[in-house]
Amino acid sequence: MPDLHRVLILGGGFAGLVAAQTLKRADVDITLLDKRNFHLFQPLLYQVATGSLSPAEIAAPIRAVFSHQKNVEVLLGEAVDIDPEAKKILLADGGVFPYDTLIIATGSQTSYYGNDQWRKNAPSLKSIEEATTMRHNLLYAFERAERAETEAEERAWLNFVIVGAGATGLELAGALAEIAHHTLKHDFRRIRPQEARIILMEGGPRVLSPYPEDLSAKAERLVKHLGVEVMLGAFVTNIDADGVSYKHGDISGTVPSRTVFWAGGVTTTPFARKVAERLSAETDRAGRFKVNPDLTLPNHPEIFVLGDLALSLDQKGNPLPGVAQVAIQGGRYAGKLVKARLAGRKLPRFKYFNKGDMAVIGRAAAVANIFGVHVSGFIAWCIWLFIHLIYIVEFQSRIIVLIQWGFLYLTFSRSARLITGELSSDPPTPRPRT
Amino acid sequence: MPDLHRVLILGGGFAGLVAAQTLKRADVDITLLDKRNFHLFQPLLYQVATGSLSPAEIAAPIRAVFSHQKNVEVLLGEAVDIDPEAKKILLADGGVFPYDTLIIATGSQTSYYGNDQWRKNAPSLKSIEEATTMRHNLLYAFERAERAETEAEERAWLNFVIVGAGATGLELAGALAEIAHHTLKHDFRRIRPQEARIILMEGGPRVLSPYPEDLSAKAERLVKHLGVEVMLGAFVTNIDADGVSYKHGDISGTVPSRTVFWAGGVTTTPFARKVAERLSAETDRAGRFKVNPDLTLPNHPEIFVLGDLALSLDQKGNPLPGVAQVAIQGGRYAGKLVKARLAGRKLPRFKYFNKGDMAVIGRAAAVANIFGVHVSGFIAWCIWLFIHLIYIVEFQSRIIVLIQWGFLYLTFSRSARLITGELSSDPPTPRPRT
Repeated sequence: MPDLHRVLILGGGFAGLVAAQTLKRADVDITLLDKRNFHLFQPLLYQVATGSLSPAEIAAPIRAVFSHQKNVEVLLGEAVDIDPEAKKILLADGGVFPYDTLIIATGSQTSYYGNDQWRKNAPSLKSIEEATTMRHNLLYAFERAERAETEAEERAWLNFVIVGAGATGLELAGALAEIAHHTLKHDFRRIRPQEARIILMEGGPRVLSPYPEDLSAKAERLVKHLGVEVMLGAFVTNIDADGVSYKHGDISGTVPSRTVFWAGGVTTTPFARKVAERLSAETDRAGRFKVNPDLTLPNHPEIFVLGDLALSLDQKGNPLPGVAQVAIQGGRYAGKLVKARLAGRKLPRFKYFNKGDMAVIGRAAAVANIFGVHVSGFIAWCIWLFIHLIYIVEFQSRIIVLIQWGFLYLTFSRSARLITGELSSDPPTPRPRT
Repeated sequence: MPDLHRVLILGGGFAGLVAAQTLKRADVDITLLDKRNFHLFQPLLYQVATGSLSPAEIAAPIRAVFSHQKNVEVLLGEAVDIDPEAKKILLADGGVFPYDTLIIATGSQTSYYGNDQWRKNAPSLKSIEEATTMRHNLLYAFERAERAETEAEERAWLNFVIVGAGATGLELAGALAEIAHHTLKHDFRRIRPQEARIILMEGGPRVLSPYPEDLSAKAERLVKHLGVEVMLGAFVTNIDADGVSYKHGDISGTVPSRTVFWAGGVTTTPFARKVAERLSAETDRAGRFKVNPDLTLPNHPEIFVLGDLALSLDQKGNPLPGVAQVAIQGGRYAGKLVKARLAGRKLPRFKYFNKGDMAVIGRAAAVANIFGVHVSGFIAWCIWLFIHLIYIVEFQSRIIVLIQWGFLYLTFSRSARLITGELSSDPPTPRPRT
C-alpha cells in the first residue's frame, strides 16, 4: 500500500481547524499540530477578560473536535523551523515532521510597536492566560481602591485605560463600563465603583477605523453613552506602573492609572519570520506573507499560508482583514484545493465572500455593516448575538453560553468574577482602621 | 452614636460565610477578610481537577454574596499575626484590624507528613490553582504518552497514582478512570487511553476509613468496578519525577508514573500556629485548636475558632470531622451566640447534627451513611447529586452546573478539558516520523 499524501497543518485556529474538517472524506494523512490542546473562539475572549464567560466555554479540545475523523492525528507541539527542500518541519522539542502539503496557520501575536516593555503594565488579549490576567487586574483594581490610603491612590486604581479603539478596544471598554456602573454597584462600602473612569485612547482620528465613517460615529456615540471617555488622536508615548503618557497634537499628558489594557495591533511570530527567511518569501511591514490568489506561497504550491499570517487580497486587490471569517473561508478553500489536486482537477482562485463586519459595544449596543447596509444599536446587537451563538454552538454545542448570556442580560451579574493565579507582587496597602 | 460591636471574620469558607450571614439583622459591624476574592465550594473541587466543571462554576465572589447585606465589609487581605491584648489582627501588608469578637475560620492546608519535597511531583487539591494544575497534568500525560518514544516511557505516562483513599482520593480515582475509559476513548491514534492504569494507594487497611466497614467494602468494590486498582496497606516512601516508591509489609516497590496526585491529610497553617503561640492555646498533633463547647477558645470568650482549624467534640466527646457540614453548623452557632450575647442572653452548647456522610465514586456510584442507614450505588449517587445541587444552587444560583452534569452524564464528554497555564518545563519528546 503506497503512503498516503501527508498534509501537515500548523495551528488549530479557525483556518487550521476548517482546513482539516474540509478534508474529512479525503484519502490523506493529516497531522494537526498546535502548541495548545484547544481551539480558542477568539472573538469572545474579551468576555473571559471581563468575567462573563469561563475559559472552557470558549475553548474546545482539538482532540474532541476530531475524535471521529480518523484521518486526522492531533499532536501537541510547537513548530520552530522549516526545511523546504526536504519538506520537513522542526519542533521546539527536536521532533521532525515531513509533509507533502503544508498549511501554515499559526496566527499573529500582539505588537507593542517596538515598546515591548509596556507589556508588563498593559496586557493584551491573545490567549486564555492573558484574558484571565486582565480579569485579575480589573477586579483587583477595585479591591485596591477600596483599601487605598490617599485619594490620589484611590483615583489611580479607579482609572482604567484601554489603548486602541478597534473592535477589541470597544468591546473591552463597553464591558468595563458595565462592570463599574452596574455589576459592582452594591459591592463596596467605601468607594463608589460608578466613579471609575474608563478611558479609551486611540491614535487615529476615529474609533473602528476600518469601518465606514457613519458607523464609526455611531459606535463612538454608543460607547460614550455607556460612560466611556474617548480620546482620539492621542498617541501613547509611555506606559508604566503609574499610568499612561500620551501626546495629543502639541499637548502632552499623563493619565494616572494602575490598570491599562492593550488593544493595539498585531505582528508576526518568530516561527513565521524564520519561515519567511528560509523561503525568501515576501512579507509586508507586519510580517504577513504575500500569497498567490490560491493562498499558496509563490514558487511553493505545496505551502499554504492562511489566516492572520497571510496578506491575501480580495478581487479588487484590497488586503483582507485579520478576522475569523477570512480564516474560515481560507481554510475551506485550502482543503478543497488539496482534494482537487489529488483528483487532478483545478480550482478557480480564492474568493472572499464578506458576510459583513460587526463590533459589539455593550448591552443592546453594536454596529454592523452587512452587505453595505449599516445597522446600529439593539438590532445590530441582536444580529451579533445570533451569529456568535450559531458559531459557538456549531463548534462546541455550548448551549450553556446562551444561558450564561441570558442570565447576564437579565441580572447584570457576571459569574466568572474570580481573581485567580499568583497574587499580585504588589501587596495591598491597607487603610488602617485603628 | 456609639461605635458598633466589631466582628472580624477571618476566612470566607463555609464557616466564615455562614457566620456573617447569620448576623444579617444584627446591629454589628462585620469585616470579612479573605486572601481570595471568592468563596470556594471545596466539595466539588475534584470536578474542576478532572475537567467537568470550570473554576467559576464552583466559586462565588464573596462581595457578590454580601452585596445587599450592608453590615458586612469584605476585604482582600491575609492575616499573619494577632495581638490578643489590644484585640487586633495584623495583615501581611501591614494593615491592622481591631475586633471585639474574632472568628478564625481560615481552614487547613495539605500535609505531606514532613515530605514537602513530594509536593512538586504530587499536587494536592486545596485551591483552584491546584485543581487546574491537576487538570493540566492529567490531560498532558495522555498527550505525552501519544508521542512517547519507548514503551516504558508510554507506560509511565499512562500510569496514574493517587495517594490516599479518603473521599477525595476515591472521587479523583473514579473520575480519572472515567476519563481514560470513556471520555478520551476515540481521541488518540497511537495509544489506547483505556490501557491507562489508575492506582489508588492507601496506607490504612481499607478505603474511606472513617466510614462503617460495610460501606468501605462497598466503596472499594465500586471503584474497582470502574477499573481502578486499589493498593491497601501500602506506605509511600518516596515520590519523584519517575514515580512512587512504597513499602507493603516487607515488600518494597516502585510504580513508574509521571502523574501522581496527593489526597493525603491536612495540617495547620503558619498563621494558626502563630495564633496558638500568642494565646498559648492547646492544639492537637494536626495543629487544631481545642475549643470550648461553645466553639470559643479557653480564656478567650471573644475568639471563636471554626471549621477545619477547630478540634470540636460532639456530645459523646468524639472529635468532629473536617467537613463542610461541621463548618456550616459551627458558623451558624457562632453567629447566633454573638447575637445572644449582645442581647444579654445565653445559649446552650454547640450541638452538631450529623445529616450523614457520603462519598461519590463515579457515575451512578456512591456510598452514604444517613442517620445510620447505609446506602450505596445508584441511589446513594442520586442523594449525593441532589444534596450538592441544593447547596450549590442556594449559594450561587448555578443552574448551569445542573445542565453541565446532565450533559456529562448523557455524553461522557467533559467540557473543561483545557491545558492552560505555563507549559511544562519538560518539553515533549516526539516520536520522530522521518
